[in-house]
Amino acid sequence: MSVALPSALPLPDLSMLYRGRLNAPIGKSDAETEDFPELEPYADAEAGPRSSHPLGPIEVVNVDLELGGQNRMEHRTNRFDYQDLIVRRGQPFGMVIAFNRPFDAAIDEVAVEFRIGAHALSDKHTYVSLQVHPSETRWGLRCEPNGSTVFVSLTPPPDCVVGKFCMYVTAVNGRAIMRFPTRGHMYVVILFNTWCSEEDVYLPDEAERQEYVLNDAGEIYNGTNFAVAKRPWHLGQYRPGVLEACLFVLNRCGMPLEDRRDVVNVCRRLSALINAQDDRGVLLGNWSGNYRMGVSPNAWTGSAKILLSYAANGNPVAYAQCWVFAGVLTTVLRCIGIPTRVVTNFNSAHDSTGNLKTDIYIDRFGSMDRTATRDSIWNYHCWCECWMKRIDLPGHLSGWQVVDATPQETSNGLFCCGPASVVGIKSGEVCFPYDGRFAFAQVNSDVVYRRRTYRGDKIVRIDTTHVGALILTRTPWGAQNITLNYKHPEGSAADAATMDRAVNYGCGRERSALEETGEMELELVCPAAQLGQDFALKLVVKNSTAEEQKVNLTLTCSVIYYTGVHSGDFKVVKESATCQPLTSEEVSVEVVASDYMKHMVDQGCLSFTCVGETTSGETCVAAKVVKLQLPVLSIELDEDGECKVGKEMSVTVTFNNLFNMTLADVELRLEGPGDTGDREKTFPTVDPGTSLKWNQKFIPKTEGPDQLVACLDSPMLREINGSLHINVTADKDATDKDKDKDEP
Amino acid sequence: MSVALPSALPLPDLSMLYRGRLNAPIGKSDAETEDFPELEPYADAEAGPRSSHPLGPIEVVNVDLELGGQNRMEHRTNRFDYQDLIVRRGQPFGMVIAFNRPFDAAIDEVAVEFRIGAHALSDKHTYVSLQVHPSETRWGLRCEPNGSTVFVSLTPPPDCVVGKFCMYVTAVNGRAIMRFPTRGHMYVVILFNTWCSEEDVYLPDEAERQEYVLNDAGEIYNGTNFAVAKRPWHLGQYRPGVLEACLFVLNRCGMPLEDRRDVVNVCRRLSALINAQDDRGVLLGNWSGNYRMGVSPNAWTGSAKILLSYAANGNPVAYAQCWVFAGVLTTVLRCIGIPTRVVTNFNSAHDSTGNLKTDIYIDRFGSMDRTATRDSIWNYHCWCECWMKRIDLPGHLSGWQVVDATPQETSNGLFCCGPASVVGIKSGEVCFPYDGRFAFAQVNSDVVYRRRTYRGDKIVRIDTTHVGALILTRTPWGAQNITLNYKHPEGSAADAATMDRAVNYGCGRERSALEETGEMELELVCPAAQLGQDFALKLVVKNSTAEEQKVNLTLTCSVIYYTGVHSGDFKVVKESATCQPLTSEEVSVEVVASDYMKHMVDQGCLSFTCVGETTSGETCVAAKVVKLQLPVLSIELDEDGECKVGKEMSVTVTFNNLFNMTLADVELRLEGPGDTGDREKTFPTVDPGTSLKWNQKFIPKTEGPDQLVACLDSPMLREINGSLHINVTADKDATDKDKDKDEP
Repeated sequence: MSVALPSALPLPDLSMLYRGRLNAPIGKSDAETEDFPELEPYADAEAGPRSSHPLGPIEVVNVDLELGGQNRMEHRTNRFDYQDLIVRRGQPFGMVIAFNRPFDAAIDEVAVEFRIGAHALSDKHTYVSLQVHPSETRWGLRCEPNGSTVFVSLTPPPDCVVGKFCMYVTAVNGRAIMRFPTRGHMYVVILFNTWCSEEDVYLPDEAERQEYVLNDAGEIYNGTNFAVAKRPWHLGQYRPGVLEACLFVLNRCGMPLEDRRDVVNVCRRLSALINAQDDRGVLLGNWSGNYRMGVSPNAWTGSAKILLSYAANGNPVAYAQCWVFAGVLTTVLRCIGIPTRVVTNFNSAHDSTGNLKTDIYIDRFGSMDRTATRDSIWNYHCWCECWMKRIDLPGHLSGWQVVDATPQETSNGLFCCGPASVVGIKSGEVCFPYDGRFAFAQVNSDVVYRRRTYRGDKIVRIDTTHVGALILTRTPWGAQNITLNYKHPEGSAADAATMDRAVNYGCGRERSALEETGEMELELVCPAAQLGQDFALKLVVKNSTAEEQKVNLTLTCSVIYYTGVHSGDFKVVKESATCQPLTSEEVSVEVVASDYMKHMVDQGCLSFTCVGETTSGETCVAAKVVKLQLPVLSIELDEDGECKVGKEMSVTVTFNNLFNMTLADVELRLEGPGDTGDREKTFPTVDPGTSLKWNQKFIPKTEGPDQLVACLDSPMLREINGSLHINVTADKDATDKDKDKDEP
Repeated sequence: MSVALPSALPLPDLSMLYRGRLNAPIGKSDAETEDFPELEPYADAEAGPRSSHPLGPIEVVNVDLELGGQNRMEHRTNRFDYQDLIVRRGQPFGMVIAFNRPFDAAIDEVAVEFRIGAHALSDKHTYVSLQVHPSETRWGLRCEPNGSTVFVSLTPPPDCVVGKFCMYVTAVNGRAIMRFPTRGHMYVVILFNTWCSEEDVYLPDEAERQEYVLNDAGEIYNGTNFAVAKRPWHLGQYRPGVLEACLFVLNRCGMPLEDRRDVVNVCRRLSALINAQDDRGVLLGNWSGNYRMGVSPNAWTGSAKILLSYAANGNPVAYAQCWVFAGVLTTVLRCIGIPTRVVTNFNSAHDSTGNLKTDIYIDRFGSMDRTATRDSIWNYHCWCECWMKRIDLPGHLSGWQVVDATPQETSNGLFCCGPASVVGIKSGEVCFPYDGRFAFAQVNSDVVYRRRTYRGDKIVRIDTTHVGALILTRTPWGAQNITLNYKHPEGSAADAATMDRAVNYGCGRERSALEETGEMELELVCPAAQLGQDFALKLVVKNSTAEEQKVNLTLTCSVIYYTGVHSGDFKVVKESATCQPLTSEEVSVEVVASDYMKHMVDQGCLSFTCVGETTSGETCVAAKVVKLQLPVLSIELDEDGECKVGKEMSVTVTFNNLFNMTLADVELRLEGPGDTGDREKTFPTVDPGTSLKWNQKFIPKTEGPDQLVACLDSPMLREINGSLHINVTADKDATDKDKDKDEP
C-alpha cells in the first residue's frame, strides 16, 4: 500500500480531511458572505407577516448610512476614494432608518444586524444583532424615533473585528422576519481607531495621529549615518482602489476573523504577508541587481501601484528591497488605522542567529576575505514601527513596536518579524514575543575584524559603536533621531545592564578579546562626493606608542550593495607611512570616477577597507562606506501652479545628464493625483550633457494635501528621484459637476 | 511592463535573487558536504611535503574511531543500528591515530578537523580545527602519544551543533597539508546529551534519562478520563535506518546549522516539520474517517515505518491524528537525545483563539445545535513534553515544555506549537514564547452551554472543571497523573491568581454569568461497556428547590469522533420525571448496540446530551462521552519463548471476532525486531464467532529490550491492538557469525 503522496501533487483539500475535526469552517475573509433569504420564517411558523400595530406590519423602506458625509468626516475617513461607509471602532456613527409607517418602539421589533465573513457567530464576534429599542445596551445603541424615521447611533466596541461588515435591518412581524435590503447588501468597513482612548492603538497626541494614520505622503531615509539622504514615497492610501487592496491583503492573511480584534496579531500576520515567502504575499525581494523580469526596487514611486497590482490577481509583485517592504506595510497599516512609521537603522547588522557579533575576515594580504565573511552589515535597513498597547505582555512594553516585513534569515521558520517592543529592546528584555532577540542584534552587534594567518585567526579590531549608529524616523515635526529609544548611550551603566539582561535571555554574546595592543589606529576620512566625480580619500594613521612606526598600508576599494555585500573591487592601493611617536600621519589616495563607474550597482555605494601593518607585526584596520550623492529630478507645475479638484494640471519632470556617459534603457515614473495617477515612459538613451524633459497632465479628484513623486531608473543609474508637495483645493464648478455624476 | 509573476509559476530561486544580500549561502543541512582536495598547498607554496624531522614528513595511516565499541558504550549509543560513530556532546570520546613513524608533538603539526554542512566556518560553530598538541584547549583535547600511534580524547562542547559531522585528520609538512582519509569521508554524529550537567537538556535522574531518551517502547494513553485506555507505540529509534531518517528530518527543517546548538529552536522547528502543513513535512493529518488513500491513523504500530517512508522520498506520509504526530515527534527527539514524553490531556479544548471558553449551543428542542457550536472538546489530545533549560526565558520557566506537532488552528500562521513552559502554564505566565496562551486554553477553558431561544441565547450551564480533567504521561514508574504540573487545584487561591495573570496577559476570558438558578441539576451515569453490547444509561435529576418539580427530559444519543465532532445521532429519547423537594430521581435508558453500531466511526465514542426543562421554564443540561471498550489482540511467542540475537523466533497474533457482524477489509500489522520488522496482511472478511490467527517469524539483530506491536484496522472496527515486551539476549554463536560478516 502506498503511504506517501506523489511529490508533484499538492496537499489534499484540508476541509475534506478535517471533517472529523472541526464542527464548521472558520471564517477568514470578509470577502465571503453568506446570502440570506429575503424572508426567513421561523421553523414552525405560518407564512406571512403579522403585527398587532393598528397600521399593520412595519417595513423598512430606506437606510441612510452616509448622513451627507457627516459619518465620514467625524471618523476622518472622508479622503478614501471608496463607495461604502468607513468608520472607526469605539466611536459613534449614525444612520437613519425610514419605515412605511411611524415606528413604535413599544410594539415594533426592528434590529440592525452586522456580520463579517462566512459562518458568522455572536460568540466569535463576527455577528451581532442589535434591537432598535431603548433597552439595547450593546454597541452603545441609541435611537431617536421621529415619525416614520428613526435616527440610530451605534458605537462598534473598541475591540471589534476589523474589516468589511455586511449590514442589514430586520423587521419582525409576528413570526416572519423581513430584511432590508431585500436584495444585495449594504456594507460598513470598520477600522482601528487611534482617536479612541479605550483602543489598543490609542495615541494621545493629535499631531501624531494625523501623521501616523492620516498622512499619505511618506519619506524614507537612506544613505549613510554620515550622509543621510531621503527618498519620497507616496503611501497612497487614498488612491482609488487602495483601500479595497488593503482589505484584500488582510483577507489573504488567512487568519480567523476573530483574531482581527487584536492589533498584535494583525501586525504580525501582515508582516508575513507583505513578503512573498511562505504564502505568496505581496512583494518578491530581489537584491541581485538584475530586475529585468519586473520593476527595479529603486524605481517605485509609492505603494499604490504595488497594492493594486497584487489585488488584481493575487500574485506577488516583482521586485522589492527593504524600503519597499516597509513602505507598502506602512500603507496597509495606516489604511486600516494602525499608527505606523518607517524607521531607518544605519549600519544594520544582519546576523542570522542574533549572536550579537558580526565577523569580518581580513585575508593575509590585507583585503577582505569574501568567502569567510558570512554576515553583512547593511548601510541601512528600514522597518516599521507600530504604536499599540501590548495586551499580551507586561504593561511597560506597550508603545512603539518593531514590525519588519523584509524577509530575513530568521530562525523561526516563517518570514515575519515582530511586533517587538522598542522599550524591551532598550532594556534588553528580549525574552518576550516576537523576535526581540533578532531586533536587538540589528542595533547592538559588535563588529569583529579577524585577520587570517597561517596558524589561525587573530582578532585585530572590535568596533562596538558602528552598528545601529543612527536610527531615524519621520515625525510630525520632521526627521527625528530616535536612537535613544532603542539604546542607552554606549558605555553607560544602563547600557551594560541591558547587555547583561539580553545575554541572560539567550543573546549569545561572545565577548571577543582584542589580540592587538590597539596603540596603532587607522581612520578613513572622505569628503562628500557626487557620483561620477573624482575625490580624495585620506588614510589617517595614529601612533600612540613611544616609538616611531613604519606602517605598510593596503587599501581595498570596492563597490558594494546597500546591504554591504561586495559587488567588485575597483582598486587596491599599497602605501606606506612613517609615523612619529604620539602623532598622526595622513596619506591621501585619489579615487577616480572612471575606475568605480564601471562596477557601479544600484545606489552608488563604495566601501574602503584599509589594513596597516607595522614592521613589528602589529595590525590595525579601518573601514568606511561612502554613499555618493546622486542627482535629483526636478518636478515643476506649469502655468499658474494651481491644483484644483477636477481641473487639469500640467507637470514637467526634468533630468540633466551631467555624467560622462550615455544612459541607456532609462525608465521614468511619475505618480500624481487622480484616477490614473501612475505614468511611466522608457527613453532608449539619454546622451551626456543633454536634458530629459517629460510633461504629464493630471486631474485631481479629492481635496487636500497630495504629493507628486518621480523616479528615474536605468541599469547604470538607479535611485534618482524627486517629489513635490501640492495642496488640492476645491473648485466650486467641478465639485458641482461631480455631484451630478454621482447621482445617476 | 508585467509586474506580477504568473500564478502557475513557483517563486524564483532565491539564491539568484539574493545575490546582493548574502555574502555566502548558509549551511542548513548536514547532508551537503564540501569536498576537500587530497593535498591543499598554501597559495604561495612550492609543492611537496617537507619536514624538519629526521625521519621525514609525517603521514596518517589510520584513524580508529570505534575503539572496539567503547565510545558507543560510554555514550549510550550502542543500540543504534548505524555504521558511523555516534557520540553525545559535552562528553569525551577517544580515537587512535596511527602514523607512518613515531609522532613528535614538538615538531609535527597534526590537527583533527570537524565540519558540518557546506560553507562551514569557525565563527558559525560549523567548523573546528584542533591541534594535536598539549597546548590545544578547545574540545577538551588531550593526547597521549605512544610510539607511532596517538590516543586523542575529545569533548565536543555542551553547546555544539547537533548532527552529522564530517571529520578528518590533517598533517602539515612544511607548506603542504595532507589529509586522512585522502578519499571519502569519516563521519561522527553528535547528539544532545542529557547526562551532561552543562547541557541545556540535562536531567539529573538516571531512571528518567533511561526512559525519556533511551527507551524505544512507548505507550500512549487515550479513552476518557473515566475510562483511561492505552495503545502501544513502538518508538523504534533503534530500528535500521531510523537514525538516518531522523537526521533527514532535521535537515528538512531548513534551519541554519548554527541554530541546532539551541534545543529550543530544534524543538520548535521539528514541531513544524512533523506535520505536512506549510513545509511538506512528515505526516498528513486526516480526521475524516476515510483513509483509503493511505494508512488509517489507528493502524500504525509505531514511528519507524513512517520515518523510513518519509526519508525514502521526502513526501508526506498519509495519515495521522494526534497520537501519531506525538509518537513520531517523540521518536525524532529521543533519537537526537532530547528527553521527551507523550502527554495525554483528557477533555482538551480546541478553541482557535485561546479565549478560554468553549460554547456549546442547545437548540430550542433540547438537542445540540450543530451549526452554531463551532469549538469542540477532544476526548483527549496528545502532545509532547521536552525537558530543557529555557536559556531564552527567566530561569524558573525551565523544565518540561509543551511541544505539539498536531496541526492546530493557531493564530500565528505556522503550524507549530511550543516549546511552552509547563511551569508558565501553571502560573499563568502566558506572555512568554512560544504559544503559551494556546496551551493554557487547552487545559483551562470553561464550557458554556447556551440554549437558543426565539429572543437570543440563554446561558444554562457553565462547567469549569470538565476541560483538562486529567493529564497523564508515562514515566519510568508507569502512568502518572501530572494534572497538578499544569494546574493548581480548581477553586484554590493559587488557581484564581493564575487565571488573573493569564487574563492580564491577553487570555481573553469572557466571564459568562449563569442565567439559571442552578437549583435543578442533571447528571448522566454510565457503566463500563464493551463495543457491540447493550447497556443502560442513567439520567439522574437532582432537585434542590423546596418544591416538587416535573421535568421533561430530552436525551440525544450520538456517535462522535475522538475530537468531539459529531458523526451522527442514533437515538433521541423523550422522558419525564417528577422529583420531590431536595431529592434525586433516576431514569434509566437502554442503549442498544444495533442502534449505534450502524453509525460507528473510529474509536467507539458515544456522546449523550440531556436537556431537562421544568414546567416553570428552568433548564438544566448534562453531557457525557462514553468510550466503549474494544477487544485486544493477543500476541504470543511460539515454542520456548526465547529471543536471541540472530535466532529465528515465531510469533502468533490472535483476534477473536465476538461481534455480531462480519468484518470486511481487515488489515493486520505486526512490528517486531530485526531488519524487516514491519509486516502487514489484509484479510477480506472475518466472520462472526471466528478467530483470526497469523503467524510471523522475526530474527532479532540487537541485544536488549524490544517490543512487538500489533494493530488491526477495518473500516468497521479500528484501534484494536496488542503488544508484547521481550528481552533479546546475546547468542554466542550468532554474535561470532555477525562479527565475521562485519570484517570482509
